Amino acid sequence: MSAGAIFVWEMMGTAVLVLLGTSVVANRVLRNTLGSNESFLFVNVGWGFAVFVGASIANPTGAHINPAVTLGLAVADKLDWSDVPIYWAGQMVGGVLGAVLTWLTYKLQFDNHPEPQNTLGIFSTGPTLPGKAWNTVTEVIGTFVLLLWILLTPVAAASEEGVPIFGNAALGYAGVAFVVLVIGTSLGGPTGYAINPARDLGPRIAYAFILPIRGKGDANWSYSWVPVIGPLVGATLAALLFLAVDGLT
Amino acid sequence: MSAGAIFVWEMMGTAVLVLLGTSVVANRVLRNTLGSNESFLFVNVGWGFAVFVGASIANPTGAHINPAVTLGLAVADKLDWSDVPIYWAGQMVGGVLGAVLTWLTYKLQFDNHPEPQNTLGIFSTGPTLPGKAWNTVTEVIGTFVLLLWILLTPVAAASEEGVPIFGNAALGYAGVAFVVLVIGTSLGGPTGYAINPARDLGPRIAYAFILPIRGKGDANWSYSWVPVIGPLVGATLAALLFLAVDGLT
Amino acid sequence: MSAGAIFVWEMMGTAVLVLLGTSVVANRVLRNTLGSNESFLFVNVGWGFAVFVGASIANPTGAHINPAVTLGLAVADKLDWSDVPIYWAGQMVGGVLGAVLTWLTYKLQFDNHPEPQNTLGIFSTGPTLPGKAWNTVTEVIGTFVLLLWILLTPVAAASEEGVPIFGNAALGYAGVAFVVLVIGTSLGGPTGYAINPARDLGPRIAYAFILPIRGKGDANWSYSWVPVIGPLVGATLAALLFLAVDGLT
Amino acid sequence: MSAGAIFVWEMMGTAVLVLLGTSVVANRVLRNTLGSNESFLFVNVGWGFAVFVGASIANPTGAHINPAVTLGLAVADKLDWSDVPIYWAGQMVGGVLGAVLTWLTYKLQFDNHPEPQNTLGIFSTGPTLPGKAWNTVTEVIGTFVLLLWILLTPVAAASEEGVPIFGNAALGYAGVAFVVLVIGTSLGGPTGYAINPARDLGPRIAYAFILPIRGKGDANWSYSWVPVIGPLVGATLAALLFLAVDGLT
Repeated sequence: MSAGAIFVWEMMGTAVLVLLGTSVVANRVLRNTLGSNESFLFVNVGWGFAVFVGASIANPTGAHINPAVTLGLAVADKLDWSDVPIYWAGQMVGGVLGAVLTWLTYKLQFDNHPEPQNTLGIFSTGPTLPGKAWNTVTEVIGTFVLLLWILLTPVAAASEEGVPIFGNAALGYAGVAFVVLVIGTSLGGPTGYAINPARDLGPRIAYAFILPIRGKGDANWSYSWVPVIGPLVGATLAALLFLAVDGLT
Repeated sequence: MSAGAIFVWEMMGTAVLVLLGTSVVANRVLRNTLGSNESFLFVNVGWGFAVFVGASIANPTGAHINPAVTLGLAVADKLDWSDVPIYWAGQMVGGVLGAVLTWLTYKLQFDNHPEPQNTLGIFSTGPTLPGKAWNTVTEVIGTFVLLLWILLTPVAAASEEGVPIFGNAALGYAGVAFVVLVIGTSLGGPTGYAINPARDLGPRIAYAFILPIRGKGDANWSYSWVPVIGPLVGATLAALLFLAVDGLT
Repeated sequence: MSAGAIFVWEMMGTAVLVLLGTSVVANRVLRNTLGSNESFLFVNVGWGFAVFVGASIANPTGAHINPAVTLGLAVADKLDWSDVPIYWAGQMVGGVLGAVLTWLTYKLQFDNHPEPQNTLGIFSTGPTLPGKAWNTVTEVIGTFVLLLWILLTPVAAASEEGVPIFGNAALGYAGVAFVVLVIGTSLGGPTGYAINPARDLGPRIAYAFILPIRGKGDANWSYSWVPVIGPLVGATLAALLFLAVDGLT
Repeated sequence: MSAGAIFVWEMMGTAVLVLLGTSVVANRVLRNTLGSNESFLFVNVGWGFAVFVGASIANPTGAHINPAVTLGLAVADKLDWSDVPIYWAGQMVGGVLGAVLTWLTYKLQFDNHPEPQNTLGIFSTGPTLPGKAWNTVTEVIGTFVLLLWILLTPVAAASEEGVPIFGNAALGYAGVAFVVLVIGTSLGGPTGYAINPARDLGPRIAYAFILPIRGKGDANWSYSWVPVIGPLVGATLAALLFLAVDGLT
């Protein structure tokens, strides 16, 4: 597959993922919405099936839509390292684009929000308790589970173009939605489960530099590396474990 | 497939969709029901799986049950333009019929509702904040996501009769239920996610002209074009994007 | 298949269905449980996936586990009328047995319940507003939707033994779980969606004549025919509609 | 398959199961998390899909990840008795390991929890009312349903290595997730549905002897045999019933 095609499919899939994912939080956090004050399960369902939709759309490129997935696949020797930067570029641009779309969807609500300084959490994750080391551990474990499932799930196979592909037909991606759903309910308590650098850094960039939200707060850059490094480390560890156990019979 | 058959299948599927969808809102809004004061997630689950049932029933015609889907498929060159009016007619009649069935299901509750003037929201969508332009944008984005998934999902295929068909076997339609579920949780906050003109205009017509609800309110016609035009524009945009990226490798 | 085998499979499937279904209500209604005061969605999820488990177990006989399904299939000419009484017998015995198992599961909670006179609702449905005619209409519509989906769903096929079978492999029954889930959220508000005479009458018999719950209330026999007749009528109407539209192309 | 491979796959699958399952309770019980005060349905969803992920990972060994499943399969003559201790060893070590991972994930929250003496419930089950006999009955019934479904579900088949395997491809394990979800909502009210000795005893050992939670409570050893014996008895009963009805036509 051409570099341009990889870029486009990953950008589109990640944009839809981030649009649906950040929007479910917008629906919960903002006033004057139908989802105000919904439960955390509501957010988990939204993010889980956001992955279903985004992954289906990025099916031609193997539906990574997550730089940590791309890295893990390269470490596991299932993807050429030369493709990694192309995937990452598409994912990052998609992450920014998805955040912009969320802002457009909730434009009236943002304009009328009484606490605009508290809207970063709609777009990017933050910890419930300070402590960057332990919060990184949480992100490592969450992404480790995601990658372990992706690498070991029985349907992993190569697409016709030689790109690794994880789902088979439309419902295949329901599996990864279920995985992200339970990572959210279970491992998302301390940090909000970024488990995807593009999902966190892309919207953070959009929030800081693009979105014209009047009175918005700062982008919490001092924390911003945790949901980037944590997922990349977790994915690498899962890939190394995969290499150690693959084919063990 | 004959025009009559298209009309009948689409009418039946849309009627069941609207029956189940508007009824979940009735269950939540009306008093003296088991679902009073349930969450927005409850509504999202109801509407999501309403699509599963309605689409399964309309399987022979490709399970459009939504004029925006029909339009998007025609723009994407997957449906003869001459079939569009037949699909639309069946969908609109089904939308009206579904609303009547919901009223029959909750007849006792409607008769005993203390605020009959506030029952339009059971049948048709409305905005949480005024601003028709931005609410239209929200409906455009929601329907855009729906159509993009339908057009790009790997199982899209032609049925034996040459009508495009999106699900494969019973569980295939679970995919579209998941998509509508997440559109609801994520993009439904500002406008209640019509994303389907027949789902909104059909019940609005029923509410205004057919249902004998004593003391009912007006049908909010000034807003009624938003959940019609928004979905049609969103579907068209998704179809154009599909034509641009289809087969990109 | 032998009459004895039909009886056993249908009894087992219906017993598990009713065990899981009435138990989710017990979990919600009784004190000293982990599910006290849960939402109606909680009940809908429980009943929905109760059907998944019960239907999987009764797979060899086509997974009816519901006299209305059996009747609808006979009317639709998909089952010999001579088999109907055997299916019904197994289902009714299973319904009673499932209720007994629920009582055993929650034995300590029943013994400590401060309002034992209000425990019929754990086992059998009741209306939220009086009016037997309209409550029957609600049950008719709910069962009509269930049967229409079963009869029109693309995977309907005959098993090797000539018994109609609706699911294909384990996940096939997820479809019917989704249908019952949404019937619950959407059409269950007025009457608690019996949509299955064995699910309602079997536990009612158990409650009235078998379960030694100290201080229990009466079994509300005057209402008991509604969740029997309503589902049988709804199934018949759906079968007649199926015969009218089947093969319409 | 070699004993070492069985041990590794079952350990990994059970570790992920217990990590995700105990973490959803941690998310709900601990303060300073995003899931504080969530519903019991939230816990049911977490545990249900924890099984999906854990089972997918342990796919090569038939995805037991539960000593009761292993025992039931042996009783049902689907597994060599000589393999049982190997499966059990992997599952028990995995159970301990999963609990440790949960503690690492929620390290900051454990350190700041105001009631550390009340944290056993995060890791192991306990009854809502005293009465070991009836609580054992509840665990027997829950595990009976689980094993009956596993043994009778249509997709049960032998893997290439001769190890029984229950899912088919990635989404096959969604079925067992649905079963555990409904066991939770329906049968989990009195005892918290251990239905798996490794899921309960492993974390209990970790809590008592390994986890350095300051001010932690005791491990309630007097109850600890209930969630071990109950599931083993329930699985045996289901296997005996399976042997009685298998092939009944």
